[in-house]
Amino acid sequence: MADSSGQQGKGRRVQPQWSPPAGTQPCRLHLYNSLTRNKEVFIPQDGKKVTWYCCGPTVYDASHMGHARSYISFDILRRVLKDYFKFDVFYCMNITDIDDKIIKRARQNHLFEQYREKRPEAAQLLEDVQAALKPFSVKLNETTDPDKKQMLERIQHAVQLATEPLEKAVQSRLTGEEVNSCVEVLLEEAKDLLSDWLDSTLGCDVTDNSIFSKLPKFWEGDFHRDMEALNVLPPDVLTRVSEYVPEIVNFVQKIVDNGYGYVSNGSVYFDTAKFASSEKHSYGKLVPEAVGDQKALQEGEGDLSISADRLSEKRSPNDFALWKASKPGEPSWPCPWGKGRPGWHIECSAMAGTLLGASMDIHGGGFDLRFPHHDNELAQSEAYFENDCWVRYFLHTGHLTIAGCKMSKSLKNFITIKDALKKHSARQLRLAFLMHSWKDTLDYSSNTMESALQYEKFLNEFFLNVKDILRAPVDITGQFEKWGEEEAELNKNFYDKKTAIHKALCDNVDTRTVMEEMRALVSQCNLYMAARKAVRKRPNQALLENIALYLTHMLKIFGAVEEDSSLGFPVGGPGTSLSLEATVMPYLQVLSEFREGVRKIAREQKVPEILQLSDALRDNILPELGVRFEDHEGLPTVVKLVDRNTLLKEREEKRRVEEEKRKKKEEAARRKQEQEAAKLAKMKIPPSEMFLSETDKYSKFDENGLPTHDMEGKELSKGQAKKLKKLFEAQEKLYKEYLQMAQNGSFQ
Amino acid sequence: MADSSGQQGKGRRVQPQWSPPAGTQPCRLHLYNSLTRNKEVFIPQDGKKVTWYCCGPTVYDASHMGHARSYISFDILRRVLKDYFKFDVFYCMNITDIDDKIIKRARQNHLFEQYREKRPEAAQLLEDVQAALKPFSVKLNETTDPDKKQMLERIQHAVQLATEPLEKAVQSRLTGEEVNSCVEVLLEEAKDLLSDWLDSTLGCDVTDNSIFSKLPKFWEGDFHRDMEALNVLPPDVLTRVSEYVPEIVNFVQKIVDNGYGYVSNGSVYFDTAKFASSEKHSYGKLVPEAVGDQKALQEGEGDLSISADRLSEKRSPNDFALWKASKPGEPSWPCPWGKGRPGWHIECSAMAGTLLGASMDIHGGGFDLRFPHHDNELAQSEAYFENDCWVRYFLHTGHLTIAGCKMSKSLKNFITIKDALKKHSARQLRLAFLMHSWKDTLDYSSNTMESALQYEKFLNEFFLNVKDILRAPVDITGQFEKWGEEEAELNKNFYDKKTAIHKALCDNVDTRTVMEEMRALVSQCNLYMAARKAVRKRPNQALLENIALYLTHMLKIFGAVEEDSSLGFPVGGPGTSLSLEATVMPYLQVLSEFREGVRKIAREQKVPEILQLSDALRDNILPELGVRFEDHEGLPTVVKLVDRNTLLKEREEKRRVEEEKRKKKEEAARRKQEQEAAKLAKMKIPPSEMFLSETDKYSKFDENGLPTHDMEGKELSKGQAKKLKKLFEAQEKLYKEYLQMAQNGSFQ
Repeated sequence: MADSSGQQGKGRRVQPQWSPPAGTQPCRLHLYNSLTRNKEVFIPQDGKKVTWYCCGPTVYDASHMGHARSYISFDILRRVLKDYFKFDVFYCMNITDIDDKIIKRARQNHLFEQYREKRPEAAQLLEDVQAALKPFSVKLNETTDPDKKQMLERIQHAVQLATEPLEKAVQSRLTGEEVNSCVEVLLEEAKDLLSDWLDSTLGCDVTDNSIFSKLPKFWEGDFHRDMEALNVLPPDVLTRVSEYVPEIVNFVQKIVDNGYGYVSNGSVYFDTAKFASSEKHSYGKLVPEAVGDQKALQEGEGDLSISADRLSEKRSPNDFALWKASKPGEPSWPCPWGKGRPGWHIECSAMAGTLLGASMDIHGGGFDLRFPHHDNELAQSEAYFENDCWVRYFLHTGHLTIAGCKMSKSLKNFITIKDALKKHSARQLRLAFLMHSWKDTLDYSSNTMESALQYEKFLNEFFLNVKDILRAPVDITGQFEKWGEEEAELNKNFYDKKTAIHKALCDNVDTRTVMEEMRALVSQCNLYMAARKAVRKRPNQALLENIALYLTHMLKIFGAVEEDSSLGFPVGGPGTSLSLEATVMPYLQVLSEFREGVRKIAREQKVPEILQLSDALRDNILPELGVRFEDHEGLPTVVKLVDRNTLLKEREEKRRVEEEKRKKKEEAARRKQEQEAAKLAKMKIPPSEMFLSETDKYSKFDENGLPTHDMEGKELSKGQAKKLKKLFEAQEKLYKEYLQMAQNGSFQ
Repeated sequence: MADSSGQQGKGRRVQPQWSPPAGTQPCRLHLYNSLTRNKEVFIPQDGKKVTWYCCGPTVYDASHMGHARSYISFDILRRVLKDYFKFDVFYCMNITDIDDKIIKRARQNHLFEQYREKRPEAAQLLEDVQAALKPFSVKLNETTDPDKKQMLERIQHAVQLATEPLEKAVQSRLTGEEVNSCVEVLLEEAKDLLSDWLDSTLGCDVTDNSIFSKLPKFWEGDFHRDMEALNVLPPDVLTRVSEYVPEIVNFVQKIVDNGYGYVSNGSVYFDTAKFASSEKHSYGKLVPEAVGDQKALQEGEGDLSISADRLSEKRSPNDFALWKASKPGEPSWPCPWGKGRPGWHIECSAMAGTLLGASMDIHGGGFDLRFPHHDNELAQSEAYFENDCWVRYFLHTGHLTIAGCKMSKSLKNFITIKDALKKHSARQLRLAFLMHSWKDTLDYSSNTMESALQYEKFLNEFFLNVKDILRAPVDITGQFEKWGEEEAELNKNFYDKKTAIHKALCDNVDTRTVMEEMRALVSQCNLYMAARKAVRKRPNQALLENIALYLTHMLKIFGAVEEDSSLGFPVGGPGTSLSLEATVMPYLQVLSEFREGVRKIAREQKVPEILQLSDALRDNILPELGVRFEDHEGLPTVVKLVDRNTLLKEREEKRRVEEEKRKKKEEAARRKQEQEAAKLAKMKIPPSEMFLSETDKYSKFDENGLPTHDMEGKELSKGQAKKLKKLFEAQEKLYKEYLQMAQNGSFQ
């Protein structure tokens, strides 16, 4: 405040008192934490760093929409925390490439291929199928789960349908080919059945360990490609169980040393009672009500490890395997307790523990992994680190249903990611996910997708309109027109919407509300643009561009628009107009000129290999890049940038035509050769012998071999004799020619 | 904790207690606030919204490096607050297009063009120049400021230099053409002088108001183009004084109504004493020590408004004009007090007040605007809104010096932005700014720019190397190799650096420290890459790519790398993100492989012409397109897409070095030849003649030509004779060698 004297001479020397504004209570990010089943304020443990571990796929088959449900939602959460809230996220994911499902599937595929390669006789196959049906029927009767039962019945029915025709073919001794086709059909239908049976009988003799790594490596590559296609960011670090076995062994050993694990018959089990009774720990933090649920526990133990003897090794049925002794036919690794392999739950504890240490901020996974997998992970790690906070925030993505039903192979509603991407683009799928909450069930149906498509179209129209407005020619000062009330009001709405969107993202990343707020903002812009149009006035370019850039920016944060992920300084300086043609043509020109220079020298100096290399460049390599070189004698080669697919089709067509031409030429050459051979064969016959073999026409011949009497001994007429004489002379000429050729050796 | 009973039957029904982690005290953004001359914690008034007003340019001439100093630094601050700290920034800037400088410049240009179009006779021009020199000399004598005085003297001198030749041409009645050329030269040199004189005499008769809008509109366009070239983001809203006169009039009226302004002789002045004495207000918040500084105040009143009568209209010399009555020849707008135009300070208060209301978060401007401009803005607005917090945080960018000196037209070190961009790219300028604190003085010198160029090169080589590593063909699972200690350590450094960078940005957006931290991070990566190369192992692609993407992202936030600002959904579906690199590299790869194939055959079949063609492609043709081929014996050629200018400079450098080497080689060969010739010449002398020519040393010789007596006829001592004998024998040997060579003709 001014000094009381009010005297204003040379001015006070001191700046007045200042205090920061009160500001408003900033709304903070809350996340739904499965550890409390509540939305909790999110506080990272160390500044802005967020350590995050997500359970990756078990890689033994194509990834399906259930995977998409989890990995697209976690991708959205990760991007929002990283790019919107600016947390410094360190995101790790594992690949389960050692697992009973993998072992079983690899062994079955291996044994079935071996069986098929031996090309069993029809009868043998029929016998084996019958043998395989016995254990199958037992399993069918024991199955209670309706979905699974239905699936097994379907297999049984298909096998019967394929068996009958083969039996008939065998009984009616049909040809090899017809039997073989029935064999093929039965082999295909009974594949699962036979594989199971072969595995149960021959599984333990399998010693080729490579089959247990080839299968997962293939499906891991497939998984990455699917994720790329869905625009899911790769993890910051990826861990594979097969590469962390030593760390897992140490992890198990320490749990045993800490008194929470015990060795039994070559396997090691986790002592849940011991752990639960300790003051420092709690078992079953996520799903306490599931503790003791044997069915869930068994599923966690893996198909090859739920035999009765395994159960007997445990002190309590609630205990679970940390390390499993391997039976013959199962891959194994050395360890203090004999030869075996990791249990399922321990992998994640060991790998996440190695990378993220004693306490991570976020652990994510699918909803159905809560128990036993995640609860057991928590127990293992808290037993290892002797703490009670291995995971601070546990996030579970909701289920995915297909048109209301659970997705399962039996209901034939099993949709792979590749299938889904044939029907919709990655962006449309992602918009659908954004329009749902990440933690609730998402029904993947035509309705769901229809509303996503509508949304995409609504937004796209808006972007196109704004781009059109921005293209209107205006001088550089014209883009900044004075704001009237409408601009001020639209701008106010814009900032209010941004605040609302911020609030929604703070509320457990509620993207459904965000998408509605974005839709409302676009509607407000549409109203503004229409109002300006009505009074023949140009809408304010800078304001509309700002709003459109904000919406594009949010879509990029959500991964619905691909971010330009180029590295470092863009080459070519600012504003290099990146139309493909203008960009690429200079480089192609250089390639073409270099090729021509090289061909010229090669022709002059007779270096055919270089000419072939130049042709291969034109015909095989460049078409792959959508480039067509057209060589014209004596003229510079014409360079064309064409749509790649069209070009490849053209190449195929050219090859087909060339192939046909080649075949025709070959055909013609063959026929010519045959004619020559026939001609030669004809020339070879001495005229004197030419008629002798025609005993079906003539009965007597003169001394030159010319026929004199026909079959019935009747003397030939003058006309007939004259005609034969002519043939005789013609042959004489040919024969002379033949002798001539034989002389100058032209028959090499 | 587990329930005390330890009984683990069906499991407890309740999840254990959970509490959020303590987390660490997040470091918050502090900004240096000129209102306290301290770094203050930055708290926006309403959630994440940040209202921000920046004083834009007075548009009457080309923008210079002083402008760049302010607008690049504010662009960096704005981008960091918007894209890094994710504040919801609303950034307004004005264009001063009504101002005494504009009025004077427009009128002078107008009158001078009229004078020139009348094509004055030589004699008339000479007379007028003399007339104009009178007031000019008065002004020169009155000028105290050393810079200004030097500039006026320079003009005076130049005019004299141009006057003499014209006078002579007139006296010696030279041809029309010669006279005209002298007239043109004098007109050009005396332009400022004549314009001033014409304006002082004819200014008041100018009535064509359009000249007062054409000049600023032109230079506003020029300013926007310069900003675009510097990659400075356009403001969210731009206000022009000429479009806000009604709002300004109301603003002045309300200040008068509130009792802080008074009308005097058609102008309106701000009553600083009244304002300062009020309990609710303080005057001179930014620079209290400058209150009363008449010189500074006068500069704020504008060149046309500091006449003595204007001063007499003020109640106190500290008062300043809110509204100025317009004199003839000055543009004017209707208002309650007759015809006039806005004062300088009131524009910003009125425009910012209209858009941002009673209290904004940030006001920015150049350091030398603190007093009187910004202090008067504060007074006006707080008088209007009757509050004491019109601006919460006042940010001033530091000065710019040119190689240590103040930039000024008189010192001829006045560098326009266009000049600067001819010498360096916008990115290099921005890197230089980033490597300095935004609030301190920045010296624009070759040193400053050299360190920026070094920095750019250091980063660019890193990006190129990472891109080369990422191109190494690896199957899709290969990009995720298991982390060893080196990867874990590099990753730890990476996250520590990100934390350090966050801390530096919180500390008043200290980009200088950030750039050093980024440099250190690159060095750590280089060490890691070198270590992996040393043990013939591939570096971890995913980790290096992550780090490179982070650095690129930070450079984009700082505006040093252009952001892809396309709107909406990219055309052409996913993966067509048209980064030049991704687009062009496949074609370059094909060119490189074709070249390698051709070189291989050419070497095998000894076709040197093709090898020369391949070298020419690498050395002459591809650099033009910014492509660098690096051939490594026995390894595939490394393809690098580099900035074209850098590459051409490199090629020039390479040629210069090769040229130098060639010259050195030639030089050495020439010297060698000379030595050999000298040696040969020496060998040719028969020993008998070798001393004969040395008559300055010896007077008598024996029969073999050996000297016996010195110059004075004195016999040589034994020692001397012995020494000469030795020389004689050495020459004998050489001579024999020479005869030998002559015989076997080795002198072609």
